[in-house]
Amino acid sequence: MTIRPATSSTIRIARRAGGTAAAARMVPEETPIALSYAGTTHAVMMASPADFEDFALGFSLTEGIIASPEEIESIEVQDVEAGIDIQIRLKDRANTRFEARRRRLAGPVGCGLCGIESIEEAMRSVDAVDASRLTLTADEITGAVKALSKQQPLHAETGAVHAAGFYMPGKGVVAAREDVGRHNALDKLAGALAKAGIEGNVGAVVVTSRVSVEMVQKTAAIGAPFIIAVSAPTALAIRTAEAAGMTLVALVRGDEFDIFTRPERVSSGVSKHVA
Amino acid sequence: MTIRPATSSTIRIARRAGGTAAAARMVPEETPIALSYAGTTHAVMMASPADFEDFALGFSLTEGIIASPEEIESIEVQDVEAGIDIQIRLKDRANTRFEARRRRLAGPVGCGLCGIESIEEAMRSVDAVDASRLTLTADEITGAVKALSKQQPLHAETGAVHAAGFYMPGKGVVAAREDVGRHNALDKLAGALAKAGIEGNVGAVVVTSRVSVEMVQKTAAIGAPFIIAVSAPTALAIRTAEAAGMTLVALVRGDEFDIFTRPERVSSGVSKHVA
Repeated sequence: MTIRPATSSTIRIARRAGGTAAAARMVPEETPIALSYAGTTHAVMMASPADFEDFALGFSLTEGIIASPEEIESIEVQDVEAGIDIQIRLKDRANTRFEARRRRLAGPVGCGLCGIESIEEAMRSVDAVDASRLTLTADEITGAVKALSKQQPLHAETGAVHAAGFYMPGKGVVAAREDVGRHNALDKLAGALAKAGIEGNVGAVVVTSRVSVEMVQKTAAIGAPFIIAVSAPTALAIRTAEAAGMTLVALVRGDEFDIFTRPERVSSGVSKHVA
Repeated sequence: MTIRPATSSTIRIARRAGGTAAAARMVPEETPIALSYAGTTHAVMMASPADFEDFALGFSLTEGIIASPEEIESIEVQDVEAGIDIQIRLKDRANTRFEARRRRLAGPVGCGLCGIESIEEAMRSVDAVDASRLTLTADEITGAVKALSKQQPLHAETGAVHAAGFYMPGKGVVAAREDVGRHNALDKLAGALAKAGIEGNVGAVVVTSRVSVEMVQKTAAIGAPFIIAVSAPTALAIRTAEAAGMTLVALVRGDEFDIFTRPERVSSGVSKHVA
């Protein structure tokens, strides 16, 4: 059974503009989605109720639970009244590794970690991205953001959700996913890329949001040498991108942008490949 | 020892605007902050490294770990290289209650909950806010947002952090806190209000961000009958506010805004109390 909940709803409101008038507005839905492995919940995310398989696959990859899509035995999406429960079964070796990690994290009660251990877990080092020869021109960077903006149907309806896309020189934005949460949009993109067999090192991750350290960690897990963002990065995101050898471009507004790390991948030439 | 890390940093960048030029930009810091109870971490948040005691107190309150500030024995802030560890000691009764909850949530390994249980935990019902006679005029609502914008020094520097404030008729925005994460800003505000002995039912929570269901849950925990937001709400946030009897005003732009729930608390009259 394919589950397709609505991703937006029309809400009746009172609009105050001079006087007060009845009006209607489209708003995004937000649903608790549990990601469960071997029958036990690993995380609950408040997310847009769409692209569940992409989400399960992408989250499993960017969180390091699996090394490749082949390690997943099955993904089952269950509609459980108050939300969506995604039951993920891992194949033998991945399951053994996951259970060992879970036992390590879990003490006798609760998560069992002290503050220092939990912080180290949150700040796990990211793999360096491929020192690939991929470069992008300024036109490609601004063109990628413009191209992504045309692949945001939920945002067009509601004006209130984030998107993550993957830009490839000469091909444009080859995949895009939307979500009320920016991390979820990026996880869904990671899943869509893996499902399509697209390697991360051939293009750039493009996001409509700010860049927190988790966005850089997930982009590194995807293996993309570029993250291009509409809004601003944090200092920790910049340091993490620098350490990973990733080019971080942000605050893309029209034809202007700021390059925070590894500017050598932004070429000054004019490309033939504009999205 | 009082720990005061920098909340922003100046980063050297390459700015592309026509040509490429070296420039500098202020960006917000982002630090993993562990909230530990009885020596074990309950959560790690990526947050602005400031207002640690407010954060510990507010998080404990809005997550229902304590019912009042008196239930906290001590808060100790430790700088642990990769982040900040906040060690919170609860008094006897609160500690017993917390340990019981933790045991209930924890199975033999991992968090132990199945998807349905985890979703129910995330969707815990919120208490109805006081059906107080607090009403606000349109001028007070737009004035509260303008007043908050003058209490955002970190945002003025970086253009990239959220704020949560508390507006009281006749007194203006009496407390405001900023953070890279909108939930953290609201938790810090909750702590600041509790420390100052300000009851939530006498005013309105004002936030610069979108309104997810968690923002409504936290505002209900504060006990405020109003949440006023610059950006848009989700459908689930609207349903939760409606169920809690909370007035949700959002998309405040200049003198215009949309009222999503309980419009009867927005009076059409002109108030004497404009912030």
